[in-house]
Amino acid sequence: MTATAADAWARFSASLCACPSIGLTLDVSTVGFEESLFDTMASSITSAFDAMAELEKGGIANPDENRMVGHYWLRNAGLAPTPELQQSIASTVDKINAFARDVHAGKHGTFTHLLNIGIGGSALGPMFVADALGQPGHDRIVPKFVDNTDPDGVARTLAELDGKLAETIVIVTSKSGGTPETRNGMLLVKAAYERAGLDFAKHVVAITGEGSKLDQVATSEGWLERFPMWDWVGGRTSELATVGLVPAALQGIDIDQMLAGAGACDEVTRAHDARTNPAMLLALMWHHVTGGRGEKDMVVLPYKDRLLLFSRYLQQLVMESLGKKLDLSGAVVEQGIAVYGNKGSTDQHAYVQQLRDGVNNFFAVFVRVLEAGPSETEGVEVEPGVSAGDYLHGFLLGTREALAEGGREALTITVPRVDAFHVGVLIALFERAVGFYASLVNINAYHQPGVEAGKKAAAGVLELQQKVIGGLGEHPADAAAIAQAVGATGREDQVFMVLEHLAANGRAVQAGHGAGATFSRKAG
Amino acid sequence: MTATAADAWARFSASLCACPSIGLTLDVSTVGFEESLFDTMASSITSAFDAMAELEKGGIANPDENRMVGHYWLRNAGLAPTPELQQSIASTVDKINAFARDVHAGKHGTFTHLLNIGIGGSALGPMFVADALGQPGHDRIVPKFVDNTDPDGVARTLAELDGKLAETIVIVTSKSGGTPETRNGMLLVKAAYERAGLDFAKHVVAITGEGSKLDQVATSEGWLERFPMWDWVGGRTSELATVGLVPAALQGIDIDQMLAGAGACDEVTRAHDARTNPAMLLALMWHHVTGGRGEKDMVVLPYKDRLLLFSRYLQQLVMESLGKKLDLSGAVVEQGIAVYGNKGSTDQHAYVQQLRDGVNNFFAVFVRVLEAGPSETEGVEVEPGVSAGDYLHGFLLGTREALAEGGREALTITVPRVDAFHVGVLIALFERAVGFYASLVNINAYHQPGVEAGKKAAAGVLELQQKVIGGLGEHPADAAAIAQAVGATGREDQVFMVLEHLAANGRAVQAGHGAGATFSRKAG
Repeated sequence: MTATAADAWARFSASLCACPSIGLTLDVSTVGFEESLFDTMASSITSAFDAMAELEKGGIANPDENRMVGHYWLRNAGLAPTPELQQSIASTVDKINAFARDVHAGKHGTFTHLLNIGIGGSALGPMFVADALGQPGHDRIVPKFVDNTDPDGVARTLAELDGKLAETIVIVTSKSGGTPETRNGMLLVKAAYERAGLDFAKHVVAITGEGSKLDQVATSEGWLERFPMWDWVGGRTSELATVGLVPAALQGIDIDQMLAGAGACDEVTRAHDARTNPAMLLALMWHHVTGGRGEKDMVVLPYKDRLLLFSRYLQQLVMESLGKKLDLSGAVVEQGIAVYGNKGSTDQHAYVQQLRDGVNNFFAVFVRVLEAGPSETEGVEVEPGVSAGDYLHGFLLGTREALAEGGREALTITVPRVDAFHVGVLIALFERAVGFYASLVNINAYHQPGVEAGKKAAAGVLELQQKVIGGLGEHPADAAAIAQAVGATGREDQVFMVLEHLAANGRAVQAGHGAGATFSRKAG
Repeated sequence: MTATAADAWARFSASLCACPSIGLTLDVSTVGFEESLFDTMASSITSAFDAMAELEKGGIANPDENRMVGHYWLRNAGLAPTPELQQSIASTVDKINAFARDVHAGKHGTFTHLLNIGIGGSALGPMFVADALGQPGHDRIVPKFVDNTDPDGVARTLAELDGKLAETIVIVTSKSGGTPETRNGMLLVKAAYERAGLDFAKHVVAITGEGSKLDQVATSEGWLERFPMWDWVGGRTSELATVGLVPAALQGIDIDQMLAGAGACDEVTRAHDARTNPAMLLALMWHHVTGGRGEKDMVVLPYKDRLLLFSRYLQQLVMESLGKKLDLSGAVVEQGIAVYGNKGSTDQHAYVQQLRDGVNNFFAVFVRVLEAGPSETEGVEVEPGVSAGDYLHGFLLGTREALAEGGREALTITVPRVDAFHVGVLIALFERAVGFYASLVNINAYHQPGVEAGKKAAAGVLELQQKVIGGLGEHPADAAAIAQAVGATGREDQVFMVLEHLAANGRAVQAGHGAGATFSRKAG
């Protein structure tokens, strides 16, 4: 062994974070950090561990919203700060399992399909888990999703359920009960049930905050069941709360194993040692690679088809948690880490060309799954002694090597298989890594002020649309004139776009193209 | 109107690139470029127009591979440089339409499902188009995809087709005929047909280069049909070649309209005027925003569920084309633009928090679709006088405004609807914008040297695996010892990972965890 080779193996061996109790290893050997990193960051690391401990004890970890942050209690109810909360968590999991058993037993009717209506954290976790753990022909109930206010998209999902609405159970998930996309999706789906002559209330379950608008509707209309969405669970960390557990249990996924995996990962990632705690090691590597300022994107590359949606789930978990303007002291920091990726080796034929040769503005997170898959396909040799799974694994190692040669940094997470336990492990690992990273850069990971601002801006556009409709006359006028008429000077571009939208949907008449087009009221 | 408001509207009106013949507009008013940009870039713009004209005439636009780049001829065969090529293009489109008619008429058996096996350009375009233009209950044939060498993933797709293989037509697409993922997928699918007692050859079509390994197999086994993949069409620009047209035609999509849309967009984007040519304007804006060095990521946000996969398609088109180490003079430039995104308004609940408030390392490309959708859902009011589609449009405008307020730049592309014609327009628009951008930064958009390097690295791992299998003994040894025994010092980390992979799949015995684990031959 040459000196360099011996060094490389020594570095790999010494830095490998192996966690046998959760079947996980984290390899950071192809990140160019120095051993001194642990010393340099020591006081930040200690603060992050302390902040996490405070959070787990029920401190107000989300000061802007004056809220506790309790998603870790979900997999260990005994940690919750009051007996009432402990009781509420435990009884809710029991209630979910009992409800799923009743549905599978046909107690509420025959249900073969599930339609989950929600957006953001109420869709991304459920979609990821449904795809990661589902199996055609084996799922107890086949899941479908409505995650937007696109009428064409909703119609398409309803077309997939054509003739099956009677045997479709609907879940409507909204913490506040007032998320417009979710409410709109529910109204369109409800209208489809009514057109089919079915009683919507007999098919639908609510997951929402107690006493919310949605909760009131569900109560007054006598929906099948209601599950609580606690105010101490944020949307992006709600996959192991009712939001994720109810649809998973209905699909036939072992939610107790998901909770067990997450709980076991929580145990491991509570250790106050940055070298052996994979969540802290992950956060530290992110900090090192991105300069603690999001200078590089995180490219998530699981080599396993079932994990295709992991990156979409992580986009919200990471970017909504870390993408903040202000730090905890109120200073402008414009933090965040951009996340993208789909799956290997597929993405090698899409953008690995750029990763290897192009702009060096990213680091990769490989997810490696050891067990290749079912024997009926693994039994097929694609070359003598070589399986399709050998190729998949070979492509991962080859790409890891090719990136390292080109000076591109990467982390490699290994799990034995994609099952309920290890999906729980992966979710918990990234939840805690994001929490640690937020502490390292001194931001609040648990609020989302920018989302509110976007909602307000959209509401303003809808108000403007109502004004513009009122401002349409018999005689054609251009956007500038109509803007002036309805008191919207300075927003001519929006007035123009609203007019185009109205004309395209039969609510105004357009003449001409481009900014000079004129618009008038529709006759009749 | 205040002076500022008047300025904003003047800027919007003057810069709006409206192209009525293809129903497209491009708004660049929220990008902070100065009018002088067009002068500063004038000579680069002229060179880019000239290079594109040369390419379209049949010049060797891909010098590294000594190839013509002819994807624009596909939608206007008369442009191809020889009568033979013109004839080949026209007759191939006729052959595709005739084949689809025959299949729909049951001439080759009853086919209700389609399984497309391919990766990279042989999957991303077909998947995007199938999703953008498909409709449950209306598709002539229901499309499914195998786009990886994951045996579990292939098994899952086969499970979706359980009991339906007899009525499933398979397409195997590989230009060289030697892409391992595609070959492996084909072998696993073929094995499934054999297990079902079906004659695979009677169900399968090849799309490949004439005389390739795959072409030879298809010929000797008597497959249903073979379609050519010309060497002057790159994988990432092959959606409007056989690669994309054959599956689309089988699904029942109007491929003539796709070609017409692309051809019409080509006409518009040949204009030598950067202000009115939307492809050049797009490329110029990318150049301005990213400093011509990929300094910002492109976040693609179509507000339409059907366009969810557009960003995945664009990841390859943009990143594989632009992600280059060397420029045309051989200088190291490490170019590229990272692309990600899913759809609005869904992504507003995922990562728009970071876009608005966080690290300012991106620009957005909104795709706005004017017609909201089918009347059965649009007829439902979600509030008095307000539709779900009004919300979707309102969220787009609100987010565009919120980003602009925060100093984040964005482009807005508008099309009237998502149909075959406008999907052709969008594909052609980005193909040409990428070509122009490559000229502006002086790189070859049409080769992919890094992909080859990754393939070689993977082949090296498979060779190593064979050595490691041979090096396993009765007595347990660790990775370092086995690496030394098989002559792989310096690659101990790969030897270790290969050993773990073998052990997890029943081909070695592992004792212990982490880098100190030992491995031995499996008894018996």
